[in-house]
Amino acid sequence: MKILITGFDPFGGAEINPAFEAVKRLPDRLGEAQLIKLEVPTVFEKDGVVLERAIEAEKPDVVLCVGQAGGRSVISVERVAINLMEARIPDNDGQQPMDQKIKEDGENAYFTTLPVKAMVKNVKEHGIPSSISYTAGTYVCNDIMYRLLYLIDRTYPSIRGGFIHVPYLPEQVRELPDGTPSMSAELIAEGLRWALEAIISQKDEDIKEAMGTIM
Amino acid sequence: MKILITGFDPFGGAEINPAFEAVKRLPDRLGEAQLIKLEVPTVFEKDGVVLERAIEAEKPDVVLCVGQAGGRSVISVERVAINLMEARIPDNDGQQPMDQKIKEDGENAYFTTLPVKAMVKNVKEHGIPSSISYTAGTYVCNDIMYRLLYLIDRTYPSIRGGFIHVPYLPEQVRELPDGTPSMSAELIAEGLRWALEAIISQKDEDIKEAMGTIM
Amino acid sequence: MKILITGFDPFGGAEINPAFEAVKRLPDRLGEAQLIKLEVPTVFEKDGVVLERAIEAEKPDVVLCVGQAGGRSVISVERVAINLMEARIPDNDGQQPMDQKIKEDGENAYFTTLPVKAMVKNVKEHGIPSSISYTAGTYVCNDIMYRLLYLIDRTYPSIRGGFIHVPYLPEQVRELPDGTPSMSAELIAEGLRWALEAIISQKDEDIKEAMGTIM
Amino acid sequence: MKILITGFDPFGGAEINPAFEAVKRLPDRLGEAQLIKLEVPTVFEKDGVVLERAIEAEKPDVVLCVGQAGGRSVISVERVAINLMEARIPDNDGQQPMDQKIKEDGENAYFTTLPVKAMVKNVKEHGIPSSISYTAGTYVCNDIMYRLLYLIDRTYPSIRGGFIHVPYLPEQVRELPDGTPSMSAELIAEGLRWALEAIISQKDEDIKEAMGTIM
Repeated sequence: MKILITGFDPFGGAEINPAFEAVKRLPDRLGEAQLIKLEVPTVFEKDGVVLERAIEAEKPDVVLCVGQAGGRSVISVERVAINLMEARIPDNDGQQPMDQKIKEDGENAYFTTLPVKAMVKNVKEHGIPSSISYTAGTYVCNDIMYRLLYLIDRTYPSIRGGFIHVPYLPEQVRELPDGTPSMSAELIAEGLRWALEAIISQKDEDIKEAMGTIM
Repeated sequence: MKILITGFDPFGGAEINPAFEAVKRLPDRLGEAQLIKLEVPTVFEKDGVVLERAIEAEKPDVVLCVGQAGGRSVISVERVAINLMEARIPDNDGQQPMDQKIKEDGENAYFTTLPVKAMVKNVKEHGIPSSISYTAGTYVCNDIMYRLLYLIDRTYPSIRGGFIHVPYLPEQVRELPDGTPSMSAELIAEGLRWALEAIISQKDEDIKEAMGTIM
Repeated sequence: MKILITGFDPFGGAEINPAFEAVKRLPDRLGEAQLIKLEVPTVFEKDGVVLERAIEAEKPDVVLCVGQAGGRSVISVERVAINLMEARIPDNDGQQPMDQKIKEDGENAYFTTLPVKAMVKNVKEHGIPSSISYTAGTYVCNDIMYRLLYLIDRTYPSIRGGFIHVPYLPEQVRELPDGTPSMSAELIAEGLRWALEAIISQKDEDIKEAMGTIM
Repeated sequence: MKILITGFDPFGGAEINPAFEAVKRLPDRLGEAQLIKLEVPTVFEKDGVVLERAIEAEKPDVVLCVGQAGGRSVISVERVAINLMEARIPDNDGQQPMDQKIKEDGENAYFTTLPVKAMVKNVKEHGIPSSISYTAGTYVCNDIMYRLLYLIDRTYPSIRGGFIHVPYLPEQVRELPDGTPSMSAELIAEGLRWALEAIISQKDEDIKEAMGTIM
């Protein structure tokens, strides 16, 4: 089994992005699975181009993209990506799209094809907080997740794909308001590892467990 | 102009729901617009049946549904509903659906057809905190929003429709952890009023303003 | 019975201070008690001078000072003031003391002589969130509370005195991060009113109820 | 130089306490300083007895006590302890004191004699979030800090002493509400290490830097 795992480069004036910091700490193999690590640009559309090129080259069985969700406290496994670009700040190429579709001919949203409940459960069982999220936002993280799932839907139906949001690193929150959560790169990497382990072993359908919201 | 505005009945052991508490405080007219207020059951699917019946009877130009988002601090205007029922607690009929589609033949998601940015802007300009949300959750609030937008998509294309999540009432947070935000029913009603005013005056397309996330 | 109740003027670039906004909405009488309302300057030491002058002139039985605690979500009744001035931003006279005692000859701290538990209980019973706080901070709020209790300790042993911190107003949090709690001036005033009612009726010692922390 | 560092045992139904988990990960020497590690009971008064016995036996130059502050997100250096026991839950001996003084003949409060600003600064400079706190609560953490500072004031004036509160461990927050911050034991231990380094090198008075509140 081959797994392509991506992390974004730093953006918004930051010098570091917890996503790739954690991804690069992962081993090259996890049991039977080979891990291909890729840093992707925090740029609308170009993130998808870089991703597609890597998919073509590597022919992975699984693609897991990872990004930063500043303010979240847990390993946050995304369930859905929406067909919308709405940026609060410019991306690394200076673009700031608003009210635009990612793909004119795409669905309004795509659901991940990864076993999100098994992933959350396995991360938690190994001592690391985790939960399912039902919004990947409207910035570049949602963008790459949507492009990945569009690509799977149109061209690579056998690939399983999805997205994980991770907290700030401790060093990033030093000047932010008291109470802003963070997680060390080591612990994020460990969380990703257990999420990947669940992806590897849970090949069929996801486990059954109530992981919804009460809104 | 005729506006149908709904609020859920209490659920999860609560004796009160801020949604209908606020809705019933609204006037019967707002300028040119007539307001029809409706309490809907916190029950998957039945919420949509009650809603559809009211739409048939009233033939409104606008439908705005309102629900509680415990823990949120602002008038939270939803942009998208997803085709998923995933309940963390049973609804008022004891159902707790998981991993189920709301509509087998529906889109993965529907975007609201209300001018969400104009709504947020107008609420804030009148002194009340507000923002756009990109997840209505996976419980009954997302359910009614999805069913409304499905109905509009299929049967009532001229109706504009959407959803607003509102905070807990002050009395609901008394035994919750310190820091849990709340908003008085009077202030929520005032927020809804300014949101409605924006819906009434912003008949064409929405204003342009960056209201995305930075995840 | 005569009660002197104070609220600070706006500071830190704000145009409004929830403390005096709420205080001025209070009635002039509460049952048997007369309320004297006083706006005090957000200035270290001068706050105490203005307060002392009013105490001399009015000879109140109770003094309750009120101030803003941006970020708190409840009517927050303070139990203790410490002998320390440590300002993160300059006060309204441009002073920014650090590591300084408020009173060279004062105690390290003074406990309030108000029935804080009865106050919290009464506010909550009337539907408004409230709790005891064990820190009034190190800015002007702690300063006036300490100066009041020092004055009571030295000169006016028959006066009962204390301090209440209140949340931001809704209009103040519009541009702050989502999740920042607020409370309307009307509801804060109502909360103060029930706190005052407890002060008026609970003349002897406080009620017994566990209201500590679990740190 | 000899440093006595203590951590509480688990309480409130927990199986683990981040305080001693971190303390036991510290080395036995830090440069010139020898570290003596001690687990103390989460029991009012007995914590102080155990502490005093260790001080008598070890004759340390510095005493640093460490405890859990569930919900805080940073290495939280306490500046003051108050003469009050007010427990929300029973301690490990089943006691739940309320409205009681810790020491009948003690001051209302004691300020730490550690260089708290240098400690916070050094922890942050090494990439770990940290801030000063002005309340150690009213449970056993405040209890041991108060007893330590009382002892220093009365009997051991040459000892420098203080307290640090640390976040939950990641495994502790798995079933707590999303958003509850945590920190790995490794990172907490690293934070304590940099705090200790500042204590060791900052032997005279503390650095000057504004670290107050804006309440």
